[in-house]
Amino acid sequence: MSIFTRSVSKIYTRPVLEVNLNKIIENYRLLCDIIYPSTPSAVIKDDAYGLDAAVVAKTLYEGGNCRHFWVAHAVEGEKIAEFVPGAQIFVLQGIGEDSAQLFAQYKFTPVISSPEMFAFWKKQKISDVKPVIQVETGLNRLGFRTEDLEHLSAADLKMFSMVISHLACADEKDHFMNKFQLDNFNKIRQKYFPALPASLSASDGAFLGADYTFNMVRLGAAIYGINTAPYRLNQMQNVVVVKAPVLQITQLKKGDFVGYSATYRAGTDKKIAIISIGYGDGIHRSLSNRGKIFFRIKNEWKEAKIIGRVSMDNIICDITGLDLKVGEWGYIIFDEYPLDDVARDAQTISYELLSNIGKNQRFDRVYIIK
Amino acid sequence: MSIFTRSVSKIYTRPVLEVNLNKIIENYRLLCDIIYPSTPSAVIKDDAYGLDAAVVAKTLYEGGNCRHFWVAHAVEGEKIAEFVPGAQIFVLQGIGEDSAQLFAQYKFTPVISSPEMFAFWKKQKISDVKPVIQVETGLNRLGFRTEDLEHLSAADLKMFSMVISHLACADEKDHFMNKFQLDNFNKIRQKYFPALPASLSASDGAFLGADYTFNMVRLGAAIYGINTAPYRLNQMQNVVVVKAPVLQITQLKKGDFVGYSATYRAGTDKKIAIISIGYGDGIHRSLSNRGKIFFRIKNEWKEAKIIGRVSMDNIICDITGLDLKVGEWGYIIFDEYPLDDVARDAQTISYELLSNIGKNQRFDRVYIIK
Repeated sequence: MSIFTRSVSKIYTRPVLEVNLNKIIENYRLLCDIIYPSTPSAVIKDDAYGLDAAVVAKTLYEGGNCRHFWVAHAVEGEKIAEFVPGAQIFVLQGIGEDSAQLFAQYKFTPVISSPEMFAFWKKQKISDVKPVIQVETGLNRLGFRTEDLEHLSAADLKMFSMVISHLACADEKDHFMNKFQLDNFNKIRQKYFPALPASLSASDGAFLGADYTFNMVRLGAAIYGINTAPYRLNQMQNVVVVKAPVLQITQLKKGDFVGYSATYRAGTDKKIAIISIGYGDGIHRSLSNRGKIFFRIKNEWKEAKIIGRVSMDNIICDITGLDLKVGEWGYIIFDEYPLDDVARDAQTISYELLSNIGKNQRFDRVYIIK
Repeated sequence: MSIFTRSVSKIYTRPVLEVNLNKIIENYRLLCDIIYPSTPSAVIKDDAYGLDAAVVAKTLYEGGNCRHFWVAHAVEGEKIAEFVPGAQIFVLQGIGEDSAQLFAQYKFTPVISSPEMFAFWKKQKISDVKPVIQVETGLNRLGFRTEDLEHLSAADLKMFSMVISHLACADEKDHFMNKFQLDNFNKIRQKYFPALPASLSASDGAFLGADYTFNMVRLGAAIYGINTAPYRLNQMQNVVVVKAPVLQITQLKKGDFVGYSATYRAGTDKKIAIISIGYGDGIHRSLSNRGKIFFRIKNEWKEAKIIGRVSMDNIICDITGLDLKVGEWGYIIFDEYPLDDVARDAQTISYELLSNIGKNQRFDRVYIIK
């Protein structure tokens, strides 16, 4: 399905989400080159940021030869297990009463981030699995603190297969926290885990150079086309297109209000289009009176401002001067205005935007694969 | 499952979403009383605002005797049809090439909002269905304008079974738009549809008095506990509880940073908890450094401020002075701090918050029904 197809004089009602799996593979391969010789792995938590973890895992397994996957919860691992036979599945939030059975069944590798969780893990006596230990280096989120590590015995320390931590500010190349966390990580490794494989970086850390890549990099956001190194132009390809049909075209007279709470008023006569998509589809309501809809007219992209509040199922935009018909497509996210641009307009980050969009079950979903 | 259950010294990892179906029925019944003698109907679009349209439709059909349901898209109607035999299902976004087959199969009632869609409807020649016509009265979203109505023949006008419109500012009792839209609606009814049943109000209009309720009211947000009349205390009961386990408790030293981009710095030594929920679960990232987590300690609710950025899977909060253990539950949304309060903290509306939360598939979902 070409995004340049015009569908004049037809009526459509459903928004469309296109996911380009070829570009996901290409992004992954480029990242593999960038982090070489570190081992690549794919972060497909939160249902692969909403794009469908089973589809994305299978794609990267078959098309990218990926053999290491990270999910947040064991139930997410369960969803992909059958599609990635023999691959290692790491569970970032670790193991608990509510997931122990899945770990025993699927042999997921838990990330152990606290003494309490470690004690629980040991009680489970799950064979053939050596957990990962997460250590705290400055993010102050999950992870063993130095004082916790002091209480681990020599036998305890030998139970782990990898030591990981997570960077707080890796999307800012020169942020002092990067070097601070790197130094902390190296000190902890050398003191407690001198022989253990290590992983510090996610997609953003992949661009900080060889000091940061260690044995494995956890590639997530960048696979999905997000610029995790925003201090330079994006090297990744956009993988998602979100578009929705024009349901109605009509006129505003000078003085007319638009949308809930009448937050927009026309200062002059206008032509408007009502597009069949809204915050129910994950298009953030914060785009009200701020965001943009794009239309392809005579081989050129034209921009229309969102006016009034984004509602649950509809967005209204100002198409004054544009030659459009009902049934044509308004583009919200596409190659020329990808996730990062829309997230900026919505005053959030691409991760949250993508995660919300992908969850909607009303989209007509199209997966593009060669 | 009581929300007062404390689970000391256990480890849990998954967030929990509890939906109280009894309260959904009670809210619906109270609304039926308020709008009497108007016919009640339930808006269960966007997967019943994320709570599962099939479950909610079945609940209202069996427990509330509801026989009229509104969805946004035909694919949403398909999901509920088998659970509401004989009920009428209205489709707000109307009919198009991408849904016509479902209308023919399930006999959904389309809401026709434009001359183009009406022309398309007539071509489908679907028997036994009389569509609804939506007219524009001031919202300037979907709906026939007066000039469009002028082009309808007498035969056209007789094809419809109901005339509806939608209020822009009904959550503000004294907003001038309410009376303005009411007058417009009555003028249009009297001129074009004098004999037709009519519907103007959704949940918010239900509280504006008998002039606004006409023959049918479309009850949505209020069923789910949202206060659609925020100029007075909420008459609806909270129906959702969102809670997540404490994964880790640790210390911050004065000067430590917390979370992505180091947006929080401890001015004094602190105790913090890491909770296993994040924006991947629909807890808006805009709650970063603003929102609250609540804990039940010795039969009292204690409040802990969210510090640092909300991340995809975790939230960090300041629990200095609170006696908590790993495995206890942090509450984000519950009876004492319901959707409206959290939405205010997140600088959005309850509709968007609920819609995002309900979509997450990682939640351990609990439906409470007598």
